[in-house]
Amino acid sequence: MTVATQSLKEVSLEELCINSIRFLAVDAVEKAKSGHPGLPMGAAPMAFVLWDRFLKFNPKNPKWFNRDRFVLSAGHGSMLQYALLYLTGYDSVTIEDIKQFRQWESKTPGHPENFMTPGVEVTTGPLGQGIANGVGLAIAEAHLAAKFNKPDTKIVDHYTYVIVGDGCNMEGISGEACSFAGHLGLGKLITLYDDNHISIDGSTDVAFTEDVSKRFEAYGWHVQHVEDGNTDLEAIAKAIEAAKAVTDKPSFIKVTTIIGYGSPNKQNTAGVHGAALGADEIALTRKQLNWEHEPFVIPQDALNHTLKAVERGAAYEGDWNKIFADYKAKYAQEAAEFERYISGKLPDGWDKALPIPEDKALPTRKHSETSLNKLAAVLPELIGGSADLTHSNLTEIKGKGDFQKGQYQNPNIHFGVREHAMGAICNGIALHASGLIPYGATFLIFTDYMRAAIRLSALSQAGVIWVMTHDSIGQGEDGPTHQPIETLASLRAIPNLTVFRPADGNETSGAYKIAIERAKQNAPSLLAFTRQNVPNLAGTSVEGVAKGGYTVVDSQGTPEIILIGTGSELSLCVTAAEKLTAEGKKVRVVSLPAWDLFEAQDAAYKESVLPKAVTKRLSVEAASSFGWHKYVGTEGDCVSIDRFGASAPGGVCLEKFGFSVDNVLAKAKQLLG
Amino acid sequence: MTVATQSLKEVSLEELCINSIRFLAVDAVEKAKSGHPGLPMGAAPMAFVLWDRFLKFNPKNPKWFNRDRFVLSAGHGSMLQYALLYLTGYDSVTIEDIKQFRQWESKTPGHPENFMTPGVEVTTGPLGQGIANGVGLAIAEAHLAAKFNKPDTKIVDHYTYVIVGDGCNMEGISGEACSFAGHLGLGKLITLYDDNHISIDGSTDVAFTEDVSKRFEAYGWHVQHVEDGNTDLEAIAKAIEAAKAVTDKPSFIKVTTIIGYGSPNKQNTAGVHGAALGADEIALTRKQLNWEHEPFVIPQDALNHTLKAVERGAAYEGDWNKIFADYKAKYAQEAAEFERYISGKLPDGWDKALPIPEDKALPTRKHSETSLNKLAAVLPELIGGSADLTHSNLTEIKGKGDFQKGQYQNPNIHFGVREHAMGAICNGIALHASGLIPYGATFLIFTDYMRAAIRLSALSQAGVIWVMTHDSIGQGEDGPTHQPIETLASLRAIPNLTVFRPADGNETSGAYKIAIERAKQNAPSLLAFTRQNVPNLAGTSVEGVAKGGYTVVDSQGTPEIILIGTGSELSLCVTAAEKLTAEGKKVRVVSLPAWDLFEAQDAAYKESVLPKAVTKRLSVEAASSFGWHKYVGTEGDCVSIDRFGASAPGGVCLEKFGFSVDNVLAKAKQLLG
Repeated sequence: MTVATQSLKEVSLEELCINSIRFLAVDAVEKAKSGHPGLPMGAAPMAFVLWDRFLKFNPKNPKWFNRDRFVLSAGHGSMLQYALLYLTGYDSVTIEDIKQFRQWESKTPGHPENFMTPGVEVTTGPLGQGIANGVGLAIAEAHLAAKFNKPDTKIVDHYTYVIVGDGCNMEGISGEACSFAGHLGLGKLITLYDDNHISIDGSTDVAFTEDVSKRFEAYGWHVQHVEDGNTDLEAIAKAIEAAKAVTDKPSFIKVTTIIGYGSPNKQNTAGVHGAALGADEIALTRKQLNWEHEPFVIPQDALNHTLKAVERGAAYEGDWNKIFADYKAKYAQEAAEFERYISGKLPDGWDKALPIPEDKALPTRKHSETSLNKLAAVLPELIGGSADLTHSNLTEIKGKGDFQKGQYQNPNIHFGVREHAMGAICNGIALHASGLIPYGATFLIFTDYMRAAIRLSALSQAGVIWVMTHDSIGQGEDGPTHQPIETLASLRAIPNLTVFRPADGNETSGAYKIAIERAKQNAPSLLAFTRQNVPNLAGTSVEGVAKGGYTVVDSQGTPEIILIGTGSELSLCVTAAEKLTAEGKKVRVVSLPAWDLFEAQDAAYKESVLPKAVTKRLSVEAASSFGWHKYVGTEGDCVSIDRFGASAPGGVCLEKFGFSVDNVLAKAKQLLG
Repeated sequence: MTVATQSLKEVSLEELCINSIRFLAVDAVEKAKSGHPGLPMGAAPMAFVLWDRFLKFNPKNPKWFNRDRFVLSAGHGSMLQYALLYLTGYDSVTIEDIKQFRQWESKTPGHPENFMTPGVEVTTGPLGQGIANGVGLAIAEAHLAAKFNKPDTKIVDHYTYVIVGDGCNMEGISGEACSFAGHLGLGKLITLYDDNHISIDGSTDVAFTEDVSKRFEAYGWHVQHVEDGNTDLEAIAKAIEAAKAVTDKPSFIKVTTIIGYGSPNKQNTAGVHGAALGADEIALTRKQLNWEHEPFVIPQDALNHTLKAVERGAAYEGDWNKIFADYKAKYAQEAAEFERYISGKLPDGWDKALPIPEDKALPTRKHSETSLNKLAAVLPELIGGSADLTHSNLTEIKGKGDFQKGQYQNPNIHFGVREHAMGAICNGIALHASGLIPYGATFLIFTDYMRAAIRLSALSQAGVIWVMTHDSIGQGEDGPTHQPIETLASLRAIPNLTVFRPADGNETSGAYKIAIERAKQNAPSLLAFTRQNVPNLAGTSVEGVAKGGYTVVDSQGTPEIILIGTGSELSLCVTAAEKLTAEGKKVRVVSLPAWDLFEAQDAAYKESVLPKAVTKRLSVEAASSFGWHKYVGTEGDCVSIDRFGASAPGGVCLEKFGFSVDNVLAKAKQLLG
């Protein structure tokens, strides 16, 4: 590659822009003494072509609804994205922000974080998540397009572009998501594979020698190969054109590149993957690429060109505004609904749809089904489904049809046995930020398969509802592989994730009420439901759930003992309390369906529910005691399970593990002395 | 299919045996009113052909070393395996055991559990785990063969056979593991795909329409298709023959079957997947398959045939014993080492190899590297590696070479960016039960990607060592996606998993000592190490770690306050204690590197370390406070992080989040009042 010359003006300008990306990355990583220069240096050409010639976005309004979505799934190459944001005129990333790469509270953290940096759509870094988020973004687009577009007016019409690396392609989650995207025929999902043959351990030859393109063909994708991704910009552009022309399949473009392109001694080695080049090598790289500018100085020619994105963006948005105005004139009702969607608002009185359960013993998963279906009638933005357990999780929205190729208007998604992809796809749908409320369901135990995605929903402020059934050893015969023990604890420990374990129909309605509100506030909730029947209790309430913990049965005067239950075990506490009361004991029963909501209450309220003076406390939950000592204290006790479960009918398991009124009574009496 | 006739004696006998499997499954599920008859009914032919004509095993010695390993990855079809174990004469599964299918403490739990049922190699049910275990079993075989076999004598020489279903093939973990198996060219891994087009949600057409065979070709596997897996036994046999003949690639045999074969109204539907057929349909199925026997009655002709496995097994083991005797005569030293391996014993004095660290600040991951390398010199059974973070995790056994195709004798495995498969592969290596000690490494945060496999190591008694580095916000610049917060809590909550967070070099040696011992006792350990430097402390010890918690610095007389630390924060406690002591306070510092080991100590010891009377307690750990109240009580406090981390240099993160001596002092003084 040579420096720009007059005779090759157009090309040279593009090279200049591409090198601007490269050196922003090189210099920012060098200043931080931390980061990944290799990917930005190698992937700069494809990213530049994409952003310069194809990507529709408005830098001055990063949230413009109909923008193309861009995902850097290989999130460690974050400087690629920050360089692009800066060069195209986003206010969120200035040159000063780039100098603050990877520093405390900067707009340019180590990996792209949507909640820190406007212009970043999703949070990537944990490999494979981004491409699965991309599938979710494409699903959201397809769904909204099918729902709102009219034969004469398209108000939803954008592409989702994803850059993946070798790491993403090795992760199972990407395989799950891409198999599913192929099944769905998501034609507006276009993935560029930065095929550089290097990962942290060195050449991919040490671990990854499969034929990736053939695998994507097997998934049903449209597959292309750009052999020289380092300099052949036209080939990249043509491939993207061709990908756009294929409307019934997602596209995979393998772009072969050299990692760390331009670094004479480090390119094509793992050494350039995740470490600063060092002053000497940077000097040599400047020479190699004829780059004479000081660190963080971008030549005006390059900026003049890249900043045209601002004008283009204003035009894109302006055009769309006209289309939408036209739509609004013709389709007032649909336009109003669309505006409600993207405003993130709930319709007035939506919560009146929440069921008031009849007084009948039912599994809480059944109450969940009722809630979900009642809510779906007033909240058409609900979209989701199960990882192949639809009729166990009871998550179908009845009468609404399946989300399938050609039937994208329908809300019921069959994710297949792909929990992890389901998680990241739901995150992508939520982060499309178009008002959709995604939900994903499986057995509670299989949150283990999708934990990384659940965590990212909490971190990246994705308003997802995780619907998890078969929430204890009450699961029964499937045995210890299918019975959660430590699962509730492990989920409660995740910051920003509210975990609900409702005791009955009342609490299920309460949990859904908060979960829906949280979703619209960009916060995820996880709901854990029983497989087995539980009674509907007199003292439970929607309002109680909102406080996370509350008194369900109280004693006259200060209680001698407090029984604290959740979910299916709350009724054991209530019955045990009745018996103890009959024996003259003063017993309070507290329901604690959502720990973090309880913690968020003021000290006075918490003291009113769990007075410090009452130290005889017994928790009853068919799960690990891990975490419960915060509530039972050092004087209290737990009816819990601190071993793995067992295969037997659910009732037998519960009895054998001590979840009977008799055992609760016995433990309570032990405490009472 | 017709009933046995005289003229088709040989075929008819096979059909009779196959129907024996089918009806054992049908009747056991019916009796339990729970379970999955569909897979056993459809996969019975392939399983019968495999067990009858190919699989080498000794029913009377299920642990015979050189047996072929069989894995039912589609573990919900457990009755298939129990039927085979019963029919071939294992003592572990009698007809009475089959009648106890899915009942409390039976030998026939809902899913195959290796720790309940001799003859079951690994625990399956969570989909995709089994095939990845199979890759581990095949790796163990290849490794031991390369290590011990001689040109004239093969003492390690067996196949690993796996039956997978659609569910397994949808799970990302299977993609990761099979891509890796293709890379490694594991020729003795043979997988039969029960291609029945049905999963729980119905036809796989709703979610899974990729070309699975083409995907396996892309992975580099040898791929075949048996078009009629229901009746064409010869085609199944030929395909297995052909698979065995291909020695440089794993084999994938797609066997197209009808789920629930023989049930006139339910076959080929999801209805037969996971529920009892019901009396009426069973009667019709009996008619359809000409099966006139009462439930749990197997015709003697069938038993006479299937029980020949006992004789065959004795002969297989006898032959192998001769080969081994010959080997022993010729290669006494190797034979002794081999016998030590399979005995599960550690060599005398092995723990003398544990390093005594020099008094120098180092990251505990560096101490881990030293321990691992010193141990590898005396424990050649160590085999493992990292999921593409070798030089960050520091897990290479130096000078020993990489485990690669044609170099199976080497211990360093490059798993690629495939954490979940790494987990299940390590489990498979451990459950090969040949004395190998597998270890798997990544960043602590990415245990989220492999949590299901870590849990299964604890449940299925797989002696694995999980080496996890970058164990806190000290990770630094990579930011919140890479910084564990709730991760330690979520792992500590897993039963049977000992989680170590060593404070320094002494404790790292201590952790490895226990982890190695536990591995040989079939129990996993997880070790969490710092990225950043920590000082080596005077009061820490190998012996202390063995107790899980111990006093590192003590006061004269009863302490006024106890500071409890782990890992990198223990040194903050020690320094803070020095300062407080200088101010005349009585301060104890307790190190708590392994909570469950501490819990296992007797009450007197625990009281001696954490006396009930001392209620002013401060925990210091750069992680979530979740779980800590068990130790700090209701009067204590936690220096902890109950939000997500942030991208900044590690030292800055620690300081900002309060992990400084000053802040520990301030919090301690608050408690002291």
